[in-house]
Amino acid sequence: MPHVSPEQQQEIDAQRAESFETRRATVPALEAILYQAIPILDHGFVRVVDYMGDDNAVVQAARVSYGKGTKRVSEDRGLINYLMRHRHTTPFEMAEIKYHVKLPIFVARQWIRHRTANVNEYSARYSILDNEFYIPAPQHLAAQSAQNRQGRDAVLSGDEATEVFRLLREDSENNYAHYAYMLNEDEAGDPKDESRKGLARELARMNLSLNFYTQWYWKTNLHNLLHFLSLRADPHAQYEIRVYADAMLDTLKRWVPLTYDAFMDYRMGGVTLSAKGVAAVKRLLKGEKVDRKDTGLSAREWRELQASLELPERD
Amino acid sequence: MPHVSPEQQQEIDAQRAESFETRRATVPALEAILYQAIPILDHGFVRVVDYMGDDNAVVQAARVSYGKGTKRVSEDRGLINYLMRHRHTTPFEMAEIKYHVKLPIFVARQWIRHRTANVNEYSARYSILDNEFYIPAPQHLAAQSAQNRQGRDAVLSGDEATEVFRLLREDSENNYAHYAYMLNEDEAGDPKDESRKGLARELARMNLSLNFYTQWYWKTNLHNLLHFLSLRADPHAQYEIRVYADAMLDTLKRWVPLTYDAFMDYRMGGVTLSAKGVAAVKRLLKGEKVDRKDTGLSAREWRELQASLELPERD
Amino acid sequence: MPHVSPEQQQEIDAQRAESFETRRATVPALEAILYQAIPILDHGFVRVVDYMGDDNAVVQAARVSYGKGTKRVSEDRGLINYLMRHRHTTPFEMAEIKYHVKLPIFVARQWIRHRTANVNEYSARYSILDNEFYIPAPQHLAAQSAQNRQGRDAVLSGDEATEVFRLLREDSENNYAHYAYMLNEDEAGDPKDESRKGLARELARMNLSLNFYTQWYWKTNLHNLLHFLSLRADPHAQYEIRVYADAMLDTLKRWVPLTYDAFMDYRMGGVTLSAKGVAAVKRLLKGEKVDRKDTGLSAREWRELQASLELPERD
Amino acid sequence: MPHVSPEQQQEIDAQRAESFETRRATVPALEAILYQAIPILDHGFVRVVDYMGDDNAVVQAARVSYGKGTKRVSEDRGLINYLMRHRHTTPFEMAEIKYHVKLPIFVARQWIRHRTANVNEYSARYSILDNEFYIPAPQHLAAQSAQNRQGRDAVLSGDEATEVFRLLREDSENNYAHYAYMLNEDEAGDPKDESRKGLARELARMNLSLNFYTQWYWKTNLHNLLHFLSLRADPHAQYEIRVYADAMLDTLKRWVPLTYDAFMDYRMGGVTLSAKGVAAVKRLLKGEKVDRKDTGLSAREWRELQASLELPERD
Repeated sequence: MPHVSPEQQQEIDAQRAESFETRRATVPALEAILYQAIPILDHGFVRVVDYMGDDNAVVQAARVSYGKGTKRVSEDRGLINYLMRHRHTTPFEMAEIKYHVKLPIFVARQWIRHRTANVNEYSARYSILDNEFYIPAPQHLAAQSAQNRQGRDAVLSGDEATEVFRLLREDSENNYAHYAYMLNEDEAGDPKDESRKGLARELARMNLSLNFYTQWYWKTNLHNLLHFLSLRADPHAQYEIRVYADAMLDTLKRWVPLTYDAFMDYRMGGVTLSAKGVAAVKRLLKGEKVDRKDTGLSAREWRELQASLELPERD
Repeated sequence: MPHVSPEQQQEIDAQRAESFETRRATVPALEAILYQAIPILDHGFVRVVDYMGDDNAVVQAARVSYGKGTKRVSEDRGLINYLMRHRHTTPFEMAEIKYHVKLPIFVARQWIRHRTANVNEYSARYSILDNEFYIPAPQHLAAQSAQNRQGRDAVLSGDEATEVFRLLREDSENNYAHYAYMLNEDEAGDPKDESRKGLARELARMNLSLNFYTQWYWKTNLHNLLHFLSLRADPHAQYEIRVYADAMLDTLKRWVPLTYDAFMDYRMGGVTLSAKGVAAVKRLLKGEKVDRKDTGLSAREWRELQASLELPERD
Repeated sequence: MPHVSPEQQQEIDAQRAESFETRRATVPALEAILYQAIPILDHGFVRVVDYMGDDNAVVQAARVSYGKGTKRVSEDRGLINYLMRHRHTTPFEMAEIKYHVKLPIFVARQWIRHRTANVNEYSARYSILDNEFYIPAPQHLAAQSAQNRQGRDAVLSGDEATEVFRLLREDSENNYAHYAYMLNEDEAGDPKDESRKGLARELARMNLSLNFYTQWYWKTNLHNLLHFLSLRADPHAQYEIRVYADAMLDTLKRWVPLTYDAFMDYRMGGVTLSAKGVAAVKRLLKGEKVDRKDTGLSAREWRELQASLELPERD
Repeated sequence: MPHVSPEQQQEIDAQRAESFETRRATVPALEAILYQAIPILDHGFVRVVDYMGDDNAVVQAARVSYGKGTKRVSEDRGLINYLMRHRHTTPFEMAEIKYHVKLPIFVARQWIRHRTANVNEYSARYSILDNEFYIPAPQHLAAQSAQNRQGRDAVLSGDEATEVFRLLREDSENNYAHYAYMLNEDEAGDPKDESRKGLARELARMNLSLNFYTQWYWKTNLHNLLHFLSLRADPHAQYEIRVYADAMLDTLKRWVPLTYDAFMDYRMGGVTLSAKGVAAVKRLLKGEKVDRKDTGLSAREWRELQASLELPERD
């Protein structure tokens, strides 16, 4: 099955065809993609289904003024940069966005740790899940990293890759077939076998594996969205959640371009130095030779500092 | 000064004159009053400045469906009633509203206890407060209740009322005059006296009393708004915050009429019986004579039960 | 494997053997079971690992007094009942408890919807999960309810039960064996096959099904705990989460007995009537004959009212 | 009146004299000051009244292990440093602390913006406030800063200081005297004048100014405490809230010394560079001459960078 079924696409098209008059702040660049499903992974998607406010909502909250005021865009940019730099976060809470997301359950389990959003998930207690599960693309079937217990190494290939793909696919197919069999409902595929009662949905679902797709509405304010993206669009995040965050970064850019720029400069591209790191950099800037041992930094911190400031390799 | 200054009214009018095309769910009845200041108390107001979603956002979240679906309004009403009755609260988190509120500081201090909203308040550390303070209307200058330490009794009248009004007004005027004098800034009224430095704003503000007006943007989701209203539109709430809640109830009715009806039926008009209360009512419904002592209810609970179910007075 | 491994039991015993002096409020009845694992389902458990405050913390917060004050227990009980009855919830936020819970993933997914707690879960991205999965006891292998899409009906038996058990067990064993194979790590069971790299842990885990056990630390305040228990110890909650809530109700009783009593009377045993329901009950109490049609109650609400107040069956 | 009344001191002494046996993690250095009021400003205080967990609770949550494990302190320190450096915040949510604070109302209004804590405040709607108000010490009576609208400049002196002190004191005394007069209650000072009803407490309180003292219980987890301290123990925070934060930093050091060290190194003493700032520092470290104009940094950002890394002054 594709990311979105033909019926779903029809509903999306119908919704996109409608238009209303509003006095609310409106963002044409975001309206342009409203409701559209952005395909992610093999069956997932993310789509913006509603929003409230824009860059100006942040500015307005910071000024607690009445209207748009008379300030020019350059001043709005400066103010948003200032707020981002000094972590004055409450004005960013004044804009809100709602996504509809289809994602594998193991990704949903990472995502839900962010507790500051509003969530309504498809209920497998109440309804029957579709036969859709995630299988990585060949270039993402990575080996365990030896250095980093949470990381990936080179991609698997040859017989090993073939075998892993076979196991993942067969087990998923198998789990779903037995899920449907145990349910014994017309909706689950085969016609109901009247000689069997069928297992309760809330129990049968536990036979599905964590790569099956679920979906939810996820609504959050701009501040919490930025926090989510700073963690999940980070290179240390697992690839399968990062692709969602990357797509959401694009929607952020359409929605609040000034906030996006400030976010990329001060947060995504920023580097935080510890007190000891600051002391070391001060000495380096004065041209002193700095020995790691004298800085109080651990070997790991020292490597991180070298990497982030492109210091010459030396220990 | 009126509730809104002429300059503010001009900005409001300008904002109301603009109109945009949107694909988002739009509520004409709420758009009709968008940005308009609803006068509250002697100088305060509340006005809706943005919103996201409508009754259908609640229904959609409950169904986690794609679009508006094919259900009729009667079924949406039934679903919303069901959600309200069984306290399935998460679908109500899927709609959001933002108010701009001007209110006395002592009311703001009660209001802010609701921690689940986003708030940006006018900063008296950064800016100078206006000379606006709350003086109750004569019919609201109530005496302390003898029964209820948090309650009010009959209205003060005659010499006592005259004297109280005089003290409230004189102290407020006095506090503000000294606030402005200590600030010693052109913006604070009189031209700056160059022989004095002027006290820091963050210190001078502490000379103002709790009846001075402040203002903020307050944004919350529908679920938390209902919780706020259930407490603050309640007869036990202090009059000075209840008038804000009452005005917000009107905006709720415009915004989400199905949710409003369910809220009035199940929450505002509802009665919760304890296990002991239920046992007593069961016996009464069977025609038994029930003595308070046998029910395990305290005298106070018994009175509350009598009042809420209109039982004949007997102890 | 039992609920707790011998090594774990040894650590628990060692921790229970230690004792410290403290000036903090201490609850001997809860200390008596501190750290002990209460077995739940076939491999799960819940255990209290820390707590802060007691019933008196609630009372003290309500009085904002300095010490224990001079009030007697009977007055503390009355105050706690009053707070519970009138939903004055903030004093109940002043006590805190921390649990260590081992639970199937599909139960964890329901549980985590309560966003107001602090959670640290065992990471299958970082570590390897044990080969432990949930299989219902025969008396809990229930059929799907025909009336309630979220409910269960009679227990499966005979061939159907046998077959369901076989599928659940075989699929779980199968999924785990392939998980371990794909990992190809010494820790995962068999010695590493050096000809294979091994799949990254963060990917391999997705082959496990939702009945596998995970574990977490879960910390919350008393108010949020009560809210959790009111939903999850409710007869409508799924059996597999209700057994955890029931065990936690026992720990609640040990910890804060006055709050527990109030909670059972006003919340767990309470009944909330809508405005229409109140009107109907008033008429019934006056001896009037009440026809459902006249009340404005839906058929479903009428049945719920009949059930909760034991009205004679009539429509 | 001193910071704590003799009766309050007696209750504190009584509470400190008691001792209990517990199996919970206990921190002797914090127990040593438990319940003791640390004097702040002219009448305020902060005191630790309860706590849950210690540094090990953070470590344990990060490891989701069973007991204390076998790791040495040096490894615990490394782990806590790692968590702090990489902003893995959830393990820090596993320890909790409760303070009792007496503070001026204008300080309370800043403090309450941190919404993630549990709060119970003394109710001036229910009770009568004491005649205690904040007057700055002479060395803190600062002028408004000309550069920074939220900042202070040199201290006021001579006639201006004398006059400001007179106004602050007289207005406070005056406001309180009228508050008591309007209340007309025995508890408010003078015996009740039976010819007057007395104004409701919930109204009379609004005549008090923002320098009057209130008090509350404030409970939060370690993560949120660190966030609070990073903002309020910062040099940019208003002096009158910073003194509370500074005293709480001392309690933090007693409670969780490893977390305290990490916090001081990575957060309080840390510096965050933007992407543009990083690029500039890289060039400086390579010995290049860097012109502000080429960096894309604003004049303000450039000054901040110069200050934090002690760059030679040049524009």
